[in-house]
Amino acid sequence: MKLNFEKAGGLVSAIAQDADTGTVLMIAWMNEEAFEETVKTGRAVYFSRSRNRLWRKGEESGHYQEVREIFVDCDLDAVLLKVTQKGGAACHEGYESCFFRRVAGDGLQIVGEKIFDPSEVYNR
Amino acid sequence: MKLNFEKAGGLVSAIAQDADTGTVLMIAWMNEEAFEETVKTGRAVYFSRSRNRLWRKGEESGHYQEVREIFVDCDLDAVLLKVTQKGGAACHEGYESCFFRRVAGDGLQIVGEKIFDPSEVYNR
Repeated sequence: MKLNFEKAGGLVSAIAQDADTGTVLMIAWMNEEAFEETVKTGRAVYFSRSRNRLWRKGEESGHYQEVREIFVDCDLDAVLLKVTQKGGAACHEGYESCFFRRVAGDGLQIVGEKIFDPSEVYNR
Repeated sequence: MKLNFEKAGGLVSAIAQDADTGTVLMIAWMNEEAFEETVKTGRAVYFSRSRNRLWRKGEESGHYQEVREIFVDCDLDAVLLKVTQKGGAACHEGYESCFFRRVAGDGLQIVGEKIFDPSEVYNR
């Protein structure tokens, strides 16, 4: 099994979904190395475009993602990870999901619950 | 509310999730026009990179997506659509979800159920 990294410009999309609740937690990117390490270790590893390096989810916060199942899409350029999110929050802003705001009219409404205070988790 | 289209190179990621079951159906792209039409019409409109034009999901198959809610991510460069999928299948290969194959060892295992036969739906 081979993902279409070449066609995808080196990076495929990776969606993380809570394996138990079905909540979509986040979307990130994977290069081939990140995908292979994810499969091998059972922990989600992404490729950070802003830092231009592998991003072992939880490396700073300790909130890693245990990968329970991996699905690939019809075009082989996107993957869906069913995960258990350690710490209860995937988003660096402290919410369970990065998708914690809902479009409401011309604005946004916060619908997610804050699980942690980022300033207490990250040393920045 | 403004998505970061510029930072995202013109296109943001768009995940469609079944509003009732939580199944992740597909991932595609949206430019600003696609996003605005989606919000305005309540039907999912994507931007097809291969065809380089707006893609009104279901325009050929009739299997459009009724958008029930829209969420945006922390970076404002990805959206999550909670949809009702008409026809029961989002994937052009006839499966409910484009993520119908699971990584199993070195191979892939089909886990999704085929809802329709593509040759009966698309004239290609």
